[in-house]
Amino acid sequence: MTISMHSASVPIFTRMLGNLLQWLDKAEAHAQSRQWNPDLWLGQRLAPDMLPLVKQVQIACDAVKGCVARLAGQEVPSWEDNESTIDELRARIRRTQAYIASVPAAQIDGSEAREIVVPRRSGEPRRFSGEDYLRQFVLPNFFFHLTTTYALLRQGGVAVGKGDYLGL
Amino acid sequence: MTISMHSASVPIFTRMLGNLLQWLDKAEAHAQSRQWNPDLWLGQRLAPDMLPLVKQVQIACDAVKGCVARLAGQEVPSWEDNESTIDELRARIRRTQAYIASVPAAQIDGSEAREIVVPRRSGEPRRFSGEDYLRQFVLPNFFFHLTTTYALLRQGGVAVGKGDYLGL
Repeated sequence: MTISMHSASVPIFTRMLGNLLQWLDKAEAHAQSRQWNPDLWLGQRLAPDMLPLVKQVQIACDAVKGCVARLAGQEVPSWEDNESTIDELRARIRRTQAYIASVPAAQIDGSEAREIVVPRRSGEPRRFSGEDYLRQFVLPNFFFHLTTTYALLRQGGVAVGKGDYLGL
Repeated sequence: MTISMHSASVPIFTRMLGNLLQWLDKAEAHAQSRQWNPDLWLGQRLAPDMLPLVKQVQIACDAVKGCVARLAGQEVPSWEDNESTIDELRARIRRTQAYIASVPAAQIDGSEAREIVVPRRSGEPRRFSGEDYLRQFVLPNFFFHLTTTYALLRQGGVAVGKGDYLGL
C-alpha cells in the first residue's frame, strides 16, 4: 500500500461528505424539535459578509468535483446552484459522492505533476501542479467549507461534536 | 515527483501555519486600531461550549506535531499549554514549524502502513494505519481548528478573506 493521488484525495472527500450528511440530519431534527422550518438553515451565515450555509455546501461539493475531474483530465461537470431545501442539498452531496466514485483511481493516480488550471472570476487563472493543487487549494478549501457549515450548525444549537465532525 | 507521506503532510502544515501567523497579525492590528487588548482574542469562542481561540491554535499545532512524530516513529514532544498572549501563540506556531522541519522527510516517507496509536482522554486509544491517520484524523482536525480560528477572527471583524486563508 503506497499513498497515491487517488488515495490522498477521494477517500477523504467521500468520508467527509458522508459525515456532512449526518450533520444535516441532526440539523433537520433540531429544527423539527423546535418546530421551525429546517430549510431556514440554508440562509444562515457566520457573518453578514460570509456566504450562507447553502453556498458552503455547494462549494464543498464543487471543490471535490473539480478536483477529481481536473486530476483525471476530464472536463469539470457543471451543475446548477439551485438548491433551496435540505433535501436538495442532500441530493447534491450524494451526486458528488457518486461522481467521484465513478472516476477510476487509475485516471487520478500519476497526476502529481499534471498542469492544473483553475479559472477565477476575475484575473488570470491559477496554475498548479496536480499535487500542489490538491494540497494548497482543494484540501484547505474543502475543509474550510465543511468546518464553516459545522460551525453554523453548532452556533445554531445542533448537538454535533468532534465525533460527528470526524465520523470516528 | 511522486506523492509521499511527507509531501502529503508537512508542506500543507508549514504553509497553513504560516497563513495562521498572518491572520494573527491582522487580528492584532485590528484590536490595536480599536484600542483594545489583542490578547483578548485568546478567549473568544464561537459558542459557549466550544473551545476558545487559544485552544484552537494549540490543538492545530499539536495535531501537526503529533502527526509528524508518530509517522516518523518518534516520541511526540510534550509542550505545556500555557500561552496567554498573541506573542506566545506566535511562538508556539513557530516552534511547531521548526519541529516539523527538523524531521527528515525520509523518516516520514514509507509510513503508510505503520501502526499509529493515538491515546484518548477516556476509552481505548484509536488505532490507524499511517495513511488513515493522516487522512481520517490529522488533516480533518488540523483544518477544523484553523478554520474555527479564522471564523473567530472573521466574526470579530478582522478583514481576512479567502486569500488570507489559502495564502494564495
